[in-house]
Amino acid sequence: MSLLVIGSVAFDALETPFGKREKIIGGAGTFISLSAANFVQPVNLVSVVGGDFLKSDIAMMQGKGINTDGLQIKENEKSFFWSGRYFNDMNSRETLVTELNVLGDFDPIIPESYQDCQYLMLGNLAPQVQRQVIERLHNRPKLVVMDTMNFWMDIALEELIQTIGMVDVLSINDEEARQLSKEYSLVKAAKKIMAMGPKYLIIKKGEHGALLFHGEEVFFAPALPLEEVFDPTGAGDTFAGGFIGYLASTDDISFENMKRAVIHGSAMASFCVEQFGTERLVDLQPDEVVQRVLEFVKLVNFQPQRLS
Amino acid sequence: MSLLVIGSVAFDALETPFGKREKIIGGAGTFISLSAANFVQPVNLVSVVGGDFLKSDIAMMQGKGINTDGLQIKENEKSFFWSGRYFNDMNSRETLVTELNVLGDFDPIIPESYQDCQYLMLGNLAPQVQRQVIERLHNRPKLVVMDTMNFWMDIALEELIQTIGMVDVLSINDEEARQLSKEYSLVKAAKKIMAMGPKYLIIKKGEHGALLFHGEEVFFAPALPLEEVFDPTGAGDTFAGGFIGYLASTDDISFENMKRAVIHGSAMASFCVEQFGTERLVDLQPDEVVQRVLEFVKLVNFQPQRLS
Repeated sequence: MSLLVIGSVAFDALETPFGKREKIIGGAGTFISLSAANFVQPVNLVSVVGGDFLKSDIAMMQGKGINTDGLQIKENEKSFFWSGRYFNDMNSRETLVTELNVLGDFDPIIPESYQDCQYLMLGNLAPQVQRQVIERLHNRPKLVVMDTMNFWMDIALEELIQTIGMVDVLSINDEEARQLSKEYSLVKAAKKIMAMGPKYLIIKKGEHGALLFHGEEVFFAPALPLEEVFDPTGAGDTFAGGFIGYLASTDDISFENMKRAVIHGSAMASFCVEQFGTERLVDLQPDEVVQRVLEFVKLVNFQPQRLS
Repeated sequence: MSLLVIGSVAFDALETPFGKREKIIGGAGTFISLSAANFVQPVNLVSVVGGDFLKSDIAMMQGKGINTDGLQIKENEKSFFWSGRYFNDMNSRETLVTELNVLGDFDPIIPESYQDCQYLMLGNLAPQVQRQVIERLHNRPKLVVMDTMNFWMDIALEELIQTIGMVDVLSINDEEARQLSKEYSLVKAAKKIMAMGPKYLIIKKGEHGALLFHGEEVFFAPALPLEEVFDPTGAGDTFAGGFIGYLASTDDISFENMKRAVIHGSAMASFCVEQFGTERLVDLQPDEVVQRVLEFVKLVNFQPQRLS
């Protein structure tokens, strides 16, 4: 079924203990779309870049099955730019530069051809922009998934809570869940956040996996234990892209299928961190995805009973 | 099959954000034995206490299926005493008091009736004492599991590495695995540590679950997401007790069965943290264990394929 993704398409500059990259393609919309396109095509992208953005990067996205009709190009402006440095443990980072540029006054225009979308992924952006996308669709999609971050909790909590109230699935990390709910226990935090509206809550714990909550049910997917985490940038977005891409491709929003979607999201995220930025996602082959999902099955599934 | 457990039996004084307890029964040997006794009885315990230890606590252990023939009582000495305080996040603690007392010159005497044991659990103790137990058994057990901690890496690394070389399964936490291997990546750490001798390695990650490594294989068991962690004291020992207790009761040391053993260990640890010290373990009913294991099945197992 058709998928609409909104999120930033940007330039990133990264430094990790393994090396650095200057001005490579990044942004939540980019990682989500590249990840989701492994499951469903086209991925209908809504975003904005400046005249400095590379035509070759847009062509790459198109070649991966991403529809860029909704990608606005502001020729006289500059693309969103983020620069950050990771510390040795890869769990903490510092932001060196954030230049909003074209994202500062982003008006999310939905192409008419995107209107029939059944699955909507709201990548991390200002919550009022995320809300506009829902409001501008003539029909409410079958499933709306929203990702956000602590930044919006700090500066736009009211708008954030309003948008959270309109979505089906919220995806945030553990620290953000604690900040939003004012509860340390993630079980308590999940209850409070689901009371804000979302029927499903995903709490991402980075290298410690992800939890999916729904009513009284909870499902846990680990992160794949890796020899090296090369660059964590975009892992959360790649997770979200795999999650909604799998749901859209199977068109099944049962809790059982959401478990598989969380596993597929985790599998995609495990690729993302193996190289800088989008490098691994761009090179990824379909059979690698199938193999990686099987690794997750081996990692967690067990027969509850001994066969005697 | 018969199980021999060695480890401290002690007094603990605890303070957590939920309250405090003065001088309650604790110690690795206690938690391991109480946990394992849910699966196999008797648990043949080797340990030492002072004359101050309560007869009622020994009677409680006996009532739970623990054989205390190997529990030495030094009437004129004092029991091992540990006191600690947990911080708000429950992941960090400070040790306030450690009094070795009877543990200072502990000579682990193995009763003749324990000699036929097939499963041996070496709870956290000086590595030279752990080694003595292996050497004093006339026949090597079918499976030797060892737990240890960073303290011995700091002050007795050579003896520790010698003992590690003699066991089948080593159980340590993530920080200890990093310290022992000098590798940050747990996958790399596991390879280095298994090269020291153990064919199996369990890396405990507290609230983030546990990893079981064997050759190129890896299995992950989450911790159960709980509303509250009341007191983490003894959770790692309780995990180890559930792990070896389940293996001894099924007498099956295949990797498939070790996965189930890790799940049973995790289930037991999830009980342990619900109350202070051993309180929850002492009250535990058999059907609660069965139910808790089923919660783990629901938490992690998924059908890899959709049924169309």
